[in-house]
Amino acid sequence: MALIVHKYGGTSMGSTERIRNVAKRVAKWVRAGHQLVVVPSAMSGETNRLLGLAKELAPAKPGDAYLRELDMLGSTGEQVSVGLLSIALQAEGLESVSYAGWQVPIRTNSAYTKARIESIDDKKVRKDLAAGKVVIITGFQGVDDSGNITTLGRGGSDTSAVAVAAAMQAAECLIYTDVDGVYTTDPRVVPEARRLHTVSFEEMLEMASMGSKVLQIRSVEFAGKYRVPLRVLSSFTPWDIPIEEEAKSGTLITFEEDEQMEQAVVSGIAFNRDEAKVSILGVPDKPGIAYNILGAVADANIEVDVIIQNLSKEGKTDFSFTVHRNDYARTVDLLKSKVLPSLGTDRIEGDTRICKVSIVGIGMRSHVGIASKMFRALAEEGINIQMISTSEIKTSVVIDEKYMELAVRALHRAFDLDQPAA
Amino acid sequence: MALIVHKYGGTSMGSTERIRNVAKRVAKWVRAGHQLVVVPSAMSGETNRLLGLAKELAPAKPGDAYLRELDMLGSTGEQVSVGLLSIALQAEGLESVSYAGWQVPIRTNSAYTKARIESIDDKKVRKDLAAGKVVIITGFQGVDDSGNITTLGRGGSDTSAVAVAAAMQAAECLIYTDVDGVYTTDPRVVPEARRLHTVSFEEMLEMASMGSKVLQIRSVEFAGKYRVPLRVLSSFTPWDIPIEEEAKSGTLITFEEDEQMEQAVVSGIAFNRDEAKVSILGVPDKPGIAYNILGAVADANIEVDVIIQNLSKEGKTDFSFTVHRNDYARTVDLLKSKVLPSLGTDRIEGDTRICKVSIVGIGMRSHVGIASKMFRALAEEGINIQMISTSEIKTSVVIDEKYMELAVRALHRAFDLDQPAA
Repeated sequence: MALIVHKYGGTSMGSTERIRNVAKRVAKWVRAGHQLVVVPSAMSGETNRLLGLAKELAPAKPGDAYLRELDMLGSTGEQVSVGLLSIALQAEGLESVSYAGWQVPIRTNSAYTKARIESIDDKKVRKDLAAGKVVIITGFQGVDDSGNITTLGRGGSDTSAVAVAAAMQAAECLIYTDVDGVYTTDPRVVPEARRLHTVSFEEMLEMASMGSKVLQIRSVEFAGKYRVPLRVLSSFTPWDIPIEEEAKSGTLITFEEDEQMEQAVVSGIAFNRDEAKVSILGVPDKPGIAYNILGAVADANIEVDVIIQNLSKEGKTDFSFTVHRNDYARTVDLLKSKVLPSLGTDRIEGDTRICKVSIVGIGMRSHVGIASKMFRALAEEGINIQMISTSEIKTSVVIDEKYMELAVRALHRAFDLDQPAA
Repeated sequence: MALIVHKYGGTSMGSTERIRNVAKRVAKWVRAGHQLVVVPSAMSGETNRLLGLAKELAPAKPGDAYLRELDMLGSTGEQVSVGLLSIALQAEGLESVSYAGWQVPIRTNSAYTKARIESIDDKKVRKDLAAGKVVIITGFQGVDDSGNITTLGRGGSDTSAVAVAAAMQAAECLIYTDVDGVYTTDPRVVPEARRLHTVSFEEMLEMASMGSKVLQIRSVEFAGKYRVPLRVLSSFTPWDIPIEEEAKSGTLITFEEDEQMEQAVVSGIAFNRDEAKVSILGVPDKPGIAYNILGAVADANIEVDVIIQNLSKEGKTDFSFTVHRNDYARTVDLLKSKVLPSLGTDRIEGDTRICKVSIVGIGMRSHVGIASKMFRALAEEGINIQMISTSEIKTSVVIDEKYMELAVRALHRAFDLDQPAA
């Protein structure tokens, strides 16, 4: 008997018929002898409906008081879900009880619409589990020290589920979603992409931040921090497939670097075309330049990703970095008006037609020559590399966006990701 | 400057456009210098939608755990309303904050779906009002001692508003609804029916229980107990009518028997056709008979209204009472199987085609001859009276239902209710 946390996304909770299927699946696990805590999202579309109503009424200058009300509103979608799922479980003949975040309580800070979980009290939940009940807890939300409802931001239910699993020291946290696992890359780009049976937290973090939108990135961080075994699996398999089969399906995200993982040097290819490149040319190469430029950008709340500073030549250097495409125009304006004058240059260039492609693999730590293998594969396709950025388990290149699919396919092949795992 | 509680029904909150109008009306009161606490219902249709989803999933044998989940679900409709109204008020340039029942907290017992308010903590609300904020509190719900969400049953938002007004010692509680006040009788039956400017709590209780469905009866009891001046008025007047005019519109329900009220002996005519009559004939007239019969009925949770025991004749008597029509068949079955055998009679009669018509007036206390005036008016129309029941401020008769409208009109005329108030 193990304590298991299930998390179901909005699509899985999208109708009473689907909720009934979720209940049957949960019942299967309970009848196999497990203790279950279930964290469902709001029914699909509901959160958008509520926030749409809010938007119609929103004040011209929305402040913190407005964000607080958004959380009052937005949190109701999950409350409806837990009530309905609990009822469906009772109809399946199980004992069940639902809790809103504040009832557990799940304590967060007071950052409305993007709160962070600070602690979870497990007393009530343990008591209910010991009494043979299934416990259903709202995702996406908590309560601050003053008793205000807070929400965790989009995808926050993943984080809620992992946090509950951590607090309860659950044996595993199963994230039921509309994909059947984590792939070596996006199958829409590379049809040969394979599902990974296991992936490490660190790899998952790099994959998630690169746009493999399977899990909210914060939930992965949380799982890594508290060493919660996390599995992503499909909620569209029939509810009555054998539990042994279901328990091994999807992708397990682990914190142990086991031998199997050592074998694959590169686990996956991530990519995104959400970024734009900004270059400032002819900058005097003296201390404080990077801070001058990036400090101003950070002050404007613009996030910077890849950063490159060229070798200096005759006391001048070129400085390049990428930002989100949505921030591109604002970044260029900011630099032109506030930064360039003090640098003694007016040479700024930009490019929004770029993309970033990365190879990710925990095995890169102990293997040499991985990056050069990547560069060779790209060169063989005639793809010019504009920027390079490396970390312990990831190497990223910025290239012309028109080569994105070509690059991803070439790298997928070069690292044998289309071959069945050994 | 006064502290005022406004309550808005589901129709008034039915769309973002209407919510904006509510906000404008509240803003008008705030700008006139008042402190405002607002209790809105769920958007019309929302509670039914939620309970409909629950019904689709309901277990075959719903128990207390199911009712608890209904309250988790049902309470979200009001939470959405308070969030939206608070946002609309902020858009009007006011400071506002919303609270769910548990946040105030509004404490109730644990009778899910029909909980009773036990106490209201006014600290948070007073602090917010002192800080110049409008406070918006969910109707219909509270929290029990174990932190479970409870709801007060249909129409419970009226009770919430009155309870909040009582706890805050508000100057007045204004119930904005889709009728413009309390009438001498139903205008659909008597076109000459007049709106009452004032009505006493006791009259209102009798009117409400007789089917003048303007206010939830429990809210009137609450108002009477805590002496909360209560006004029923229309939410369909333009929001920008002068506040002095609005403050005098509708019907004021008072706890003071002022002189004006003394003048009108009868304030209104109430009626309903929801009842059925049951008669047991030839019952031995000995102690304990009423208990034998009505005890069995009460044990089956069937509510009895009018009760009549005839004069005894040769040691035998007839015993009649009325029950709700929905309970009629069950009552007759119950009596035949469990009660009649022990009474030594099998003579039971029933009639579902009856109605009850009542005259209600606080002035009846100090006036004699009112009942006989009622009986004469009915006799003049050739209407036979089957049962009579009297209380201090009400006289009711049970008659054939086909005469209902005729009786109501005759009584309305006989007591000069179609004449403008003096």
